[in-house]
Amino acid sequence: MTDYRAPVSDMRFVLENISELPKIAALPGYEDATPDLVEAVLEEAGKLAANLLAPLNQKGDEVGSVLENGVVRTPNGFAEAYRQYVEGGWNAVPFDPEFGGQGLPWAVGVAAQEMWNAANMSFALCPLLTQGAVELLQAHGSQEQKDTYLAKLISGSWTGTMNLTEPQAGTDVGAVRTRAVKEGDHWRISGQKIFITWGEHDVAENIVHMVLARTPDAPEGTRGLSLFLVPKFLPDSEGRPGKRNDLRCVSLEHKLGIKASPTCVMSFGDNEGAVGFLIGEELRGMEYMFTMMNNARLSVGVQGVAIADRAYQQALAYARQRIQGREFGSREGQLVPIIRHPDVRRMLMTMRALTEAARTLAYYTAAALDHSKANPDPAERERQTRDVLELLIPVTKAWCTDVGCEVASLGIQVHGGMGFIEETGAAQHYRDARITPIYEGTNGVQALDLISRKIMRHKGEPALRLLEQMRLTVSRLEELEGESFAAMRQGLREATDAFEEATNWLIENYQARPLEAAAGATPYLRLTGLLTGGWLLAKGAIAAAEKREQPGADAPFLDGKIATARFYADSILPEAVAAATATRRGSASALALEELAV
Amino acid sequence: MTDYRAPVSDMRFVLENISELPKIAALPGYEDATPDLVEAVLEEAGKLAANLLAPLNQKGDEVGSVLENGVVRTPNGFAEAYRQYVEGGWNAVPFDPEFGGQGLPWAVGVAAQEMWNAANMSFALCPLLTQGAVELLQAHGSQEQKDTYLAKLISGSWTGTMNLTEPQAGTDVGAVRTRAVKEGDHWRISGQKIFITWGEHDVAENIVHMVLARTPDAPEGTRGLSLFLVPKFLPDSEGRPGKRNDLRCVSLEHKLGIKASPTCVMSFGDNEGAVGFLIGEELRGMEYMFTMMNNARLSVGVQGVAIADRAYQQALAYARQRIQGREFGSREGQLVPIIRHPDVRRMLMTMRALTEAARTLAYYTAAALDHSKANPDPAERERQTRDVLELLIPVTKAWCTDVGCEVASLGIQVHGGMGFIEETGAAQHYRDARITPIYEGTNGVQALDLISRKIMRHKGEPALRLLEQMRLTVSRLEELEGESFAAMRQGLREATDAFEEATNWLIENYQARPLEAAAGATPYLRLTGLLTGGWLLAKGAIAAAEKREQPGADAPFLDGKIATARFYADSILPEAVAAATATRRGSASALALEELAV
Repeated sequence: MTDYRAPVSDMRFVLENISELPKIAALPGYEDATPDLVEAVLEEAGKLAANLLAPLNQKGDEVGSVLENGVVRTPNGFAEAYRQYVEGGWNAVPFDPEFGGQGLPWAVGVAAQEMWNAANMSFALCPLLTQGAVELLQAHGSQEQKDTYLAKLISGSWTGTMNLTEPQAGTDVGAVRTRAVKEGDHWRISGQKIFITWGEHDVAENIVHMVLARTPDAPEGTRGLSLFLVPKFLPDSEGRPGKRNDLRCVSLEHKLGIKASPTCVMSFGDNEGAVGFLIGEELRGMEYMFTMMNNARLSVGVQGVAIADRAYQQALAYARQRIQGREFGSREGQLVPIIRHPDVRRMLMTMRALTEAARTLAYYTAAALDHSKANPDPAERERQTRDVLELLIPVTKAWCTDVGCEVASLGIQVHGGMGFIEETGAAQHYRDARITPIYEGTNGVQALDLISRKIMRHKGEPALRLLEQMRLTVSRLEELEGESFAAMRQGLREATDAFEEATNWLIENYQARPLEAAAGATPYLRLTGLLTGGWLLAKGAIAAAEKREQPGADAPFLDGKIATARFYADSILPEAVAAATATRRGSASALALEELAV
Repeated sequence: MTDYRAPVSDMRFVLENISELPKIAALPGYEDATPDLVEAVLEEAGKLAANLLAPLNQKGDEVGSVLENGVVRTPNGFAEAYRQYVEGGWNAVPFDPEFGGQGLPWAVGVAAQEMWNAANMSFALCPLLTQGAVELLQAHGSQEQKDTYLAKLISGSWTGTMNLTEPQAGTDVGAVRTRAVKEGDHWRISGQKIFITWGEHDVAENIVHMVLARTPDAPEGTRGLSLFLVPKFLPDSEGRPGKRNDLRCVSLEHKLGIKASPTCVMSFGDNEGAVGFLIGEELRGMEYMFTMMNNARLSVGVQGVAIADRAYQQALAYARQRIQGREFGSREGQLVPIIRHPDVRRMLMTMRALTEAARTLAYYTAAALDHSKANPDPAERERQTRDVLELLIPVTKAWCTDVGCEVASLGIQVHGGMGFIEETGAAQHYRDARITPIYEGTNGVQALDLISRKIMRHKGEPALRLLEQMRLTVSRLEELEGESFAAMRQGLREATDAFEEATNWLIENYQARPLEAAAGATPYLRLTGLLTGGWLLAKGAIAAAEKREQPGADAPFLDGKIATARFYADSILPEAVAAATATRRGSASALALEELAV
């Protein structure tokens, strides 16, 4: 078991300098997000994560959630931890004050989310799914539905789930077969759903399932899907959990990781049909789902940051404490901790740089979410929505989760043989992280979303405008002295040039050679993630250099930001250039073989 | 559960064109390795792997080996499978005919090893460790020791282990504390060893432990270590297992993967001291260990190839069978298997290209091992030993195992949500693979070995001569027509230029800035692996183009080789350039922070 310490200073640095929190606090509705309040929220969230959630993480992995006689039992301590989490108001952080939410910006919300996930990803998935249900209800629920469910979900006293996937309907959601038949003021739902995260559990008194189903005579595909609210217990006249609905968890998946998070096969309507309530209008279910997709994908990206940071903290602690060998190159003298060894140091710096880059990307995207919701200036709101939020959501989801896996793997490697032993805990992060590139739209789906909906639907412009922003930073770097900034300038200039080339390739080929463009989507997304991370780290380094001149500056902390951005530019940004080359050259050859010859 | 099919055609292609098997068969002692015999051996090995070992793999993972009352029970079926493996003579493939070995070249032996490991890595570890004991005894055992143990170990009726690691002595083997005290014609050994693979089990009648221990008054560090043979049962006068020795397995590790392979904590000498027999001379134990290191590291590299191929086969089968979505870009028409989707195709091509590149590297290195043992021409023997074998052993160990992890991760991704479910089997490969970058010298240790012992001890020359060889291939590519060969030429030229720059950086900095050179070791090794893999694939593609002109040529198979080499050049070789840049630029900045600031 290892300790977790919420990296509040690092988070605040990113919130202030990359998310530009003061600008968010100036938006209507976010006035409460003063620096003092944000600091207090993060400090308190950090305590809860470190003291309550983190100690349950390894044990939760060992025993997992189990299904017994139709009841899912979460590991010891989870129910009590959830109760405290709800009582502390933590579930309500980013939601609408009208229904009991705290109305804090998403930029702050994701920092708290990072903590929950770093401390205990299995636990954190429960509120992550509830968040989706809240978003759907807020946007599309009737007033009665909101009055009945929203305050419960926002407080967390009831939890929510997303029921999309069926055995034949994964990425192809349009293949959903679950049926809904109208019966008076409600519908009867029947069908089987799989991969339902926290679909059944013992930590809250009711569970509100959001279910995609097909109504009679609905067209095929996604256009025939409607969205239903299907509670585990139907609320009685006073809004309390009443009659048990006709739905149940029939089995739990035996998974590689996140074992404490119950992943359920759900059966709806084994008997008379589960009572469900239509959300919004018929046949618009898929459209509604897109409402919550930005938030959900951002949150999964944050999971990548979280698991990376947890793995990094653990590897760093081990490297400082594990004594092995002598100073590099000497056969005499004292034994030293392995952090003294250059190769171990490089692994730790790689973990640190990737984690911090992913965090800047996620928090920057979260800030754009706040602007897209609340900025009163239509032009700026549109810019933030299209050129930042929409563009970077798939990048945040996919690249940050890839980073999570890579950093967790390095975390094992720093531990050597001990990393492979489950008791150490490093392996759990590696296993837990591996789901994040898969769910909430695989990373391949994110890459296609990036090139098609986010870039080429707008003729490539969002990508080119991102490039413009980056080049402003390259220019700014030219004004700064010292080899660290020169290195960032060089790395960023090469990578931005490569990004421009790859983007032009995309623009030229998207219509003419759509299969090739699609085959280039993944390396193009990787390029975008690597480069945007490096760009935002460099912006942070510039801010650090400015702060360093101020009285009372925390020089070691700020120097760390500069050194990390420089290492990233030297060591990781070259991979962006490689990804650009792979995009341009490798996309045709990826398809060269007939399927049968692969 | 998934099937495994030994890729005999692919293996033979590499053996013929990259290992140049006809040249090996011309070496003294290897005359039996005719094409017909090699084909027969590989076909039969493939059947054993597919029909006997592969079906035990998933169940072995589920139940694992367990320790009960001092006895290690391997999963059902393992003991019977091992019996058949021994009876078929498979353990004896690469060993000395004088003691019952088959005397086949290592190049052929590694192909069989790849099969055992792909089918069941936990199982295959048992003979892998025995191999180390055989090598040590062959090279350094007394005639009596050879007569007593060698035939048993070569046949596999007894198994062997390597006992190096102790809790305080991992990478720093010199910290070993296990003691050996002389008593008449033998020694008494006492101490605790950890991470002892197949240290105790129920599949063979005796276990021969090779134990590093410190004799009285021995100096500190590796120079004070001696090597002892410590059998579980002391052979009686007729060479049969007799009196139980004073050693036992006190616990098994609970590991991320290879769960059927018992990883033991071994206690020697709880009572009167375990009887051990000195191998060779006192204080030369560490030197002797280097005897078997090339073979052992090559074998672990082969494990990387094996797990990659298994993961690839499984992902490919799934992609052909899983129906999801329609042809890219169309909303109408038939549902298609996911192999039709460009992004899935790219993942599969990446898996295939990396796996084949790693295989060429491992088999090429194995061929050099044969030449280093048997080539009668001293100059060629030295060239093969220093410029190929010694140089590429650490690259094969580290890069092929990194490839194994990367490909296994892609294998999960191709499966989508199903990849995260243990029943699917893809996750087991991901877990099993993760040990290979750690044991038999971590990949960081390999990287340091590469730059120091293998390159800079010879003033950089082995790397520069490898570069010369590669440039000959670039020149040869210039003579070939078609865009595939033009693409290989371009990719290889860029990567070889980058390799030259990085090697010159290493030569310039190794003495002057040893810490920086050490911090650059890992990206430099990655560069060498990526480039050598791409070079050998290109050599294979050239051979394929030549064969394609011959009557009766298998055109689809040969075209596949060319297409794969081209995809690798387009899509993966750019990462070699990135690794070269990271070596040169990132090594100083990796060390920029004081430890306490990391």
